Amino acid sequence: MYYFAVMNVVIIGTGNVAAVLSKMIRSTPHRLMQIAGRDISKSKLLAASAGVEASTFDNIYPGADMYIIAVADTALPEIAKTFHCKGIVVHTAGAVSKEILANVSDGYGVLYPLQSLRANLADIPHVPFLIDGNTEETIAKIAVFAKTISSQVSVANDDERMKLHIAAVFVNNFINYLLTITNDFCKKEKTDFSLLYPLLEETITRLKMFSPAVMQTGPAIRNDKLTIHRHLQWLSNYPEMSELYEFFTERIRGYWR
Amino acid sequence: MYYFAVMNVVIIGTGNVAAVLSKMIRSTPHRLMQIAGRDISKSKLLAASAGVEASTFDNIYPGADMYIIAVADTALPEIAKTFHCKGIVVHTAGAVSKEILANVSDGYGVLYPLQSLRANLADIPHVPFLIDGNTEETIAKIAVFAKTISSQVSVANDDERMKLHIAAVFVNNFINYLLTITNDFCKKEKTDFSLLYPLLEETITRLKMFSPAVMQTGPAIRNDKLTIHRHLQWLSNYPEMSELYEFFTERIRGYWR
Repeated sequence: MYYFAVMNVVIIGTGNVAAVLSKMIRSTPHRLMQIAGRDISKSKLLAASAGVEASTFDNIYPGADMYIIAVADTALPEIAKTFHCKGIVVHTAGAVSKEILANVSDGYGVLYPLQSLRANLADIPHVPFLIDGNTEETIAKIAVFAKTISSQVSVANDDERMKLHIAAVFVNNFINYLLTITNDFCKKEKTDFSLLYPLLEETITRLKMFSPAVMQTGPAIRNDKLTIHRHLQWLSNYPEMSELYEFFTERIRGYWR
Repeated sequence: MYYFAVMNVVIIGTGNVAAVLSKMIRSTPHRLMQIAGRDISKSKLLAASAGVEASTFDNIYPGADMYIIAVADTALPEIAKTFHCKGIVVHTAGAVSKEILANVSDGYGVLYPLQSLRANLADIPHVPFLIDGNTEETIAKIAVFAKTISSQVSVANDDERMKLHIAAVFVNNFINYLLTITNDFCKKEKTDFSLLYPLLEETITRLKMFSPAVMQTGPAIRNDKLTIHRHLQWLSNYPEMSELYEFFTERIRGYWR
């Protein structure tokens, strides 16, 4: 037998991270008490879907065990100045120090989801959490909570989290931009983007076994000037793709020289 | 009952595509007769691993049903000039017209693997093939052959193949470069790149359900200048990453303006 520490939780924020966390918490025994947002209509919308109370920032429920501030980085300083609580308080930002919350509560820290979260997706992806706290005790409490919503929880300080946030921008945001413009290209050219799925899956599968540095293929690393020339000729009506093509081709040639 | 058209096959070339195709063919009832290369030591090496005969370009077995020319795009014109055969001849290039083989044989075409192929990998990935031929009959024969080595075979003309080749460069070569420099960054900063696998997998999984244009997240699309500034400060010792970061951030802001 063991005792599960059921926590009363308040979410502050109404964006993608707040929405996905509220879904995750509802599938645990924890009690989501309230969703607080700057804009009451947004908090009401999210709170209704979660079946909990909505409030504005100036009426946050005082008796919770865990306050999760999931707002834009730029909104954090203001909340950190005006909000005070007795429970543990965490923010969910990759690039903000935990110390921004030093005056909010005696127990403060970070609960950072290393995943791209979108409110509008029915399925919740697997989310590794990077956590941190001001004391060992706070870290332990945040860890217990994080483990109830994810099977992958690591302790990471401000620096460590910042590095992984930067890496995440490269492997998610930048890759997704490449996928977006390639998908647009396929649509315009009436060709089937889904034919590329096996190639994409292979790219990711290999990563787990080999360093990407030994997996590079294609015209740039072969220095296949004829193919590169033909591709660029073809892309002459796509200036943004051409520019990217030249940029990456030069980079790849330089890297594997 | 049905009859399986067992073909005698010759592979011309000794690179990654030739090596993987020779593996694929050996797992079918087809008979791989010979591997021909410009450099006899390279053909011997590949032929030995395939348990078949090795030869140079000037001693190619004349009686095969299918000749697969898997050489660099730049080497294709020379072979196309000097080589003649009675069987069907195909090349494996994404950006070269099938017409380059018009004088090689009466039946000519293309067998293009839309996948990143590497000789040094034990596992053969799923490979969609784009095929083409000079007549309906040739296409049908190439299709029968292609279907014995892959479950996904589509007919695609020179234009169609060129477009998908370009798209493949973006989604494999350029993405793999992003993965390479991010992996290098994580190594130098002693942080665990594998923590990013769930994020990467999610990026690809979502593609099958949603357009990437509605899946973009991160500081650039949020126009979160504070985080962007912090990331760039952090990357000041990584000029190549900084340049990429600024390039993509500007692009993402422009795209989702």
